Amino acid sequence: MTKQRVVAIVCAIACMAANAADGLVGQVRQWRLGHEPVVVQQLADFTAIPSVAADASGLDSMAHRLQAELAQRGFKARLLQASPDAPAVVYGELDTPGASRTVVFYAHYDGQPVNRAEWQADPFAPVLHSTPDPKSPPVDWAKLRPPFNPEWRLFGRAVSDDKSSIVAFLQAFDALKALGHAPSVNIKVFWEGEEERGSPHLADLLRQNHSLLAANLWLIGDGPMHQSRQRTLYFGARGSLDLKATVYGPLRPLHSGHYGNWVPNPAYQAAELVMDLRAPDGSIRIPGFDRDVRPLTAAEQGAIKALPPVESSLKREFGIAQSEGSDGLTASTMRPALNVVGLQAGGPARAIPATAEASLDFRLVPDQTPERVREQVEKRLQDLGWTVLHAEPDAATRGSKSRLVRLDWNHGYPGYRGDMSSPVSRAVLATAERAAAGPVAVLPMMGGSVPIYLFTETLDVPAIVLPIANHDNNQHAADENARLQNLWDGIETYAGMLGDLHW
Amino acid sequence: MTKQRVVAIVCAIACMAANAADGLVGQVRQWRLGHEPVVVQQLADFTAIPSVAADASGLDSMAHRLQAELAQRGFKARLLQASPDAPAVVYGELDTPGASRTVVFYAHYDGQPVNRAEWQADPFAPVLHSTPDPKSPPVDWAKLRPPFNPEWRLFGRAVSDDKSSIVAFLQAFDALKALGHAPSVNIKVFWEGEEERGSPHLADLLRQNHSLLAANLWLIGDGPMHQSRQRTLYFGARGSLDLKATVYGPLRPLHSGHYGNWVPNPAYQAAELVMDLRAPDGSIRIPGFDRDVRPLTAAEQGAIKALPPVESSLKREFGIAQSEGSDGLTASTMRPALNVVGLQAGGPARAIPATAEASLDFRLVPDQTPERVREQVEKRLQDLGWTVLHAEPDAATRGSKSRLVRLDWNHGYPGYRGDMSSPVSRAVLATAERAAAGPVAVLPMMGGSVPIYLFTETLDVPAIVLPIANHDNNQHAADENARLQNLWDGIETYAGMLGDLHW
Repeated sequence: MTKQRVVAIVCAIACMAANAADGLVGQVRQWRLGHEPVVVQQLADFTAIPSVAADASGLDSMAHRLQAELAQRGFKARLLQASPDAPAVVYGELDTPGASRTVVFYAHYDGQPVNRAEWQADPFAPVLHSTPDPKSPPVDWAKLRPPFNPEWRLFGRAVSDDKSSIVAFLQAFDALKALGHAPSVNIKVFWEGEEERGSPHLADLLRQNHSLLAANLWLIGDGPMHQSRQRTLYFGARGSLDLKATVYGPLRPLHSGHYGNWVPNPAYQAAELVMDLRAPDGSIRIPGFDRDVRPLTAAEQGAIKALPPVESSLKREFGIAQSEGSDGLTASTMRPALNVVGLQAGGPARAIPATAEASLDFRLVPDQTPERVREQVEKRLQDLGWTVLHAEPDAATRGSKSRLVRLDWNHGYPGYRGDMSSPVSRAVLATAERAAAGPVAVLPMMGGSVPIYLFTETLDVPAIVLPIANHDNNQHAADENARLQNLWDGIETYAGMLGDLHW
Repeated sequence: MTKQRVVAIVCAIACMAANAADGLVGQVRQWRLGHEPVVVQQLADFTAIPSVAADASGLDSMAHRLQAELAQRGFKARLLQASPDAPAVVYGELDTPGASRTVVFYAHYDGQPVNRAEWQADPFAPVLHSTPDPKSPPVDWAKLRPPFNPEWRLFGRAVSDDKSSIVAFLQAFDALKALGHAPSVNIKVFWEGEEERGSPHLADLLRQNHSLLAANLWLIGDGPMHQSRQRTLYFGARGSLDLKATVYGPLRPLHSGHYGNWVPNPAYQAAELVMDLRAPDGSIRIPGFDRDVRPLTAAEQGAIKALPPVESSLKREFGIAQSEGSDGLTASTMRPALNVVGLQAGGPARAIPATAEASLDFRLVPDQTPERVREQVEKRLQDLGWTVLHAEPDAATRGSKSRLVRLDWNHGYPGYRGDMSSPVSRAVLATAERAAAGPVAVLPMMGGSVPIYLFTETLDVPAIVLPIANHDNNQHAADENARLQNLWDGIETYAGMLGDLHW
């Protein structure tokens, strides 16, 4: 290749980048480069509010703070509650003159529970670090001038799941306003406060506010981006169903020497129960369990095949030699899952425990329903000789039935996969690609759960998941964090969805 | 039956009781009836000293207190240590002029660990209750006059396992002295302080003090009496071997939705590991595991058959519908056992945990050895595809090996069954029967573990277990307690062994 030709190619690439930068996304990026401290400060402020299920006042403070944020941006903002004991949904609306489409932007402001002992620092005193390691020295960013290193991460509970979605929305909105760029759609905002508890009041609230929530699309701002760090759209999400199984042994813990081999051991039986329900390859040991599983379409299979491969790098990142299934990460999360998320029995003493608990987490796929899965699991356990209860057994039951298990189910919700080829799906993808100035990872369904089904079923409206969090954010675990580049990317994508979405 | 005949029979029974009461045991009983507050106070004082592994100063205080108790009774008393970091053994000796036999009285002054949250009251602030329920109102016994209700129970850690054995010995000794009754044997005392940790220094200490400990018999004062509340002798005890199995999953907990079905789940694998090693009937899933199990003799089988039946009442007491094995309580504890005493994985968040722990407790029988069982278990796991480690795996191991398990074994010790028909065995049984003025429950082996093997093997001396604790003492669990009648019976039995043992 001649030197001249190299120069020409370099120039062409630079011009393409300049063109992208000249459009809406470029202007938003320039705006962000000057406002990084403001963005980080807002995310830190939100993260400092302990909006977790264990802290009702934290949830309340967060809801009121978000209502104020919307109001000061000209939204008609209010709090919606399905019942007085439910955390409020922060609702806002802003009409766009001339717009024919209405988009609801969903996110949630509650975070997973915390076990403070597992965290390197207070989960509600956010700290910026220059590496993914929370033991690395903190960055005193308030004293530094932007642009910040995009690999820096802010640590705290809910910082990325899901407060960064809310911040990206607000900052994108502010950027468009500052740039004099009108929205292309009517905007509604719906930020709920009990997603991490399985959204127990959401169905009622949607039914109660059916007309208020009328829209042409819900954009679900939640979940992690693809592990390749490509910007990502999910056209659905797995459903969720939690089960706490409590197995009963003797009325009191008994010396394991004097009674071992004679008194039934509930810790052992909890292991049996787990193995009764699940095979080593992750398949669920219930005859007919997959009968309700809707097969993937050719388009969905094609989308999965087109994804950048991430398995090898993830194995290194996670320190695992082999995956459980052999069908690749995304394909494996298209199947129903039964995860053992907790086991608890016994203590420091060498005793046969009185009870043992297994916490199980089902991930459902279309067209499974929580009701049907509950029935299947209970029937299976009964067929295998378990006595299934839904409350603490009384003395007569304990004395007359063996293999006693109490099953405490949450209400759960089904999974959802939407049509990737509909006009609105194609419009959202095109907007995301313009905002990314490049390809977008398209997944038929997210492995994690969002109650999309409630929106699509109750409100008869399509829904698409727009995630911005880094996949390596320690979601649902200690030391949750948000990578700055993901936040920057999120602002650009949200700016596209607010100002450049047309169908 | 005529009225005269009834009177005659009643009189005969009363006379028999009076005759028994006229002998040594009757005199000791009379003495005790006048000294009950002293006995209870001593047990309460001992129990108030927190002699548990977590509290080195508590162990030390207890050892010095016991040394002083022996010294003030005329024993040559000292503390023995195998190494400076080991809790001391309290050793004492007292020669009896004219006695040709020497008996070592073994007990242990350490207790199991405590989880204070599970206790109704401070485990080291002993309280007397009038029922087995620690929620019942406490009895202010210091203000009451004896005789006390023998069903009252003193609650506290180590109160019955094993401090009541020590109190019974001391009080029996005091009773004999007060009654002017000389011992029939030379007495040695050996009270150790790390039995509940598996006696890791005991073998060394016995070897170091081989001559000092020369004797014709060890009486092992530990364990519960038969559930019939008959006075009890065990001619052996199962051995012990602890295993903590840590199963490794991803380097950090991962969201169970995004990675469930792809990332291996260590909580699930911990359940697999348990099921890989143990069948539902309690048998151990290791080919050839029973090859080292010595069959019961006809005499041993006969002794088990002669025991009062307790299974039905125990099922009611424990609130269980069925036993695990079908061969009866005592017969089932003649077999090796694998107990799951702890399971721990995950937490409040819905995540695939990074690790899971199963705490297993093997109970060994003659002629199994800990070394051989370790080999068998590790080989079995390797045969089933586990990668067995003995330390934290490094990154290269985690990235290259699946089904990673770290096995942390304690040193353990084998079981022991002695000859029930030897002269010393028959002498001890006869003394126990005289002290009980009735039948004694004879068991070939205790289900719980005591390192008898060390005494018999290292010192070449027979050993017999003399338990006094009530079986329903919550041993190794919260709200441990000692029933007063058991303490009263224990004083009489110990008085027999000190003053009325001849062979």
